[in-house]
Amino acid sequence: MIAAKVIDNIWATRKAESLIGLKFMLVEVLGGIDAGRLMIAADTIGAGIGERVVVCTGSSARKMMNQDDVPIDAAIVGIIDEDCTF
Amino acid sequence: MIAAKVIDNIWATRKAESLIGLKFMLVEVLGGIDAGRLMIAADTIGAGIGERVVVCTGSSARKMMNQDDVPIDAAIVGIIDEDCTF
Amino acid sequence: MIAAKVIDNIWATRKAESLIGLKFMLVEVLGGIDAGRLMIAADTIGAGIGERVVVCTGSSARKMMNQDDVPIDAAIVGIIDEDCTF
Amino acid sequence: MIAAKVIDNIWATRKAESLIGLKFMLVEVLGGIDAGRLMIAADTIGAGIGERVVVCTGSSARKMMNQDDVPIDAAIVGIIDEDCTF
Amino acid sequence: MIAAKVIDNIWATRKAESLIGLKFMLVEVLGGIDAGRLMIAADTIGAGIGERVVVCTGSSARKMMNQDDVPIDAAIVGIIDEDCTF
Repeated sequence: MIAAKVIDNIWATRKAESLIGLKFMLVEVLGGIDAGRLMIAADTIGAGIGERVVVCTGSSARKMMNQDDVPIDAAIVGIIDEDCTF
Repeated sequence: MIAAKVIDNIWATRKAESLIGLKFMLVEVLGGIDAGRLMIAADTIGAGIGERVVVCTGSSARKMMNQDDVPIDAAIVGIIDEDCTF
Repeated sequence: MIAAKVIDNIWATRKAESLIGLKFMLVEVLGGIDAGRLMIAADTIGAGIGERVVVCTGSSARKMMNQDDVPIDAAIVGIIDEDCTF
Repeated sequence: MIAAKVIDNIWATRKAESLIGLKFMLVEVLGGIDAGRLMIAADTIGAGIGERVVVCTGSSARKMMNQDDVPIDAAIVGIIDEDCTF
Repeated sequence: MIAAKVIDNIWATRKAESLIGLKFMLVEVLGGIDAGRLMIAADTIGAGIGERVVVCTGSSARKMMNQDDVPIDAAIVGIIDEDCTF
């Protein structure tokens, strides 16, 4: 997984049917040589803009959905505690 | 997923049988340290050149197809709204 | 897999239910052109901060769990011997 | 997928049994910030040195084989038309 | 797959049970813009230090094992012939 900061919403009215109702957030990788990399992650746990999150990528991201056939490759799986310094 | 801009068509007359009829688009990653990375993504939702899209990669890209045995690793899953600024 | 050093704990009180009780560690890639890359890896074998570990990524990371539906994409699979120089 | 140019053959007499008879080609990524990245891709459609090809990576590459248990993570899935400029 | 050179052994006495008896080698990517990247790959075909090998990554690496539940994401699948120049 990677640590990232939620920086914006991504709105896409035209999209795959299986993605309707799913929230997409733009996140930016925090720290290390990948700092500043942007990703779009599905959010099912209610992360807000500005929060630091744990993002899971690849096929494992689909494990956040109730069904396996959703075309996503990144999902927010946790919100990093505010008092967690790293 | 990543945010990218559709920049061209990719034509390949000789290809895997399971890819016949599938549209391939050249997309360029937008923003962040990966800006300028090129990818070829399958398009089943009718994205046009110049549009900004959400691209899903890896095994999840196959979820955009009706069958699981198509050899693609990237697919356009949404078209970003024109008034979405990020 | 990659060789990495465990550098911190990652605390996330709000997270996917399937992740409750799972320890997340921040690790830093060691050596080569990826040196300094940060990753969050699940730890089920008791690695401590400062130890060098072997991290497995992607769908294979889920093989460290007792069930396949846990949304993780990186796991510590071994602790590199202290006298192993490379 | 990525656009790449076939630049050489890779010969490996000692290899996994399931790979015997499979042609391996060295390809070089074309364009964008990944230009110059080298990959070894399995070729089942008869690409020649110098041709531009579409390479599929990850688990999807195995979909080019008749069976799913072949240890490959990249395969040539199409040959880009000579008159396709991008 | 990628072409890499075997540069060392990686010893990890404490590791996942399913990895016991499996040989781990440190390999360095050869050529292209990824030259110098380090990876740890499982070796079941007897590659020696100094040899050039073909490394398969991701879920496909598990196809080198007799069972699918081994947490590895890279495996040596072939040894490049000494007289193969590229």
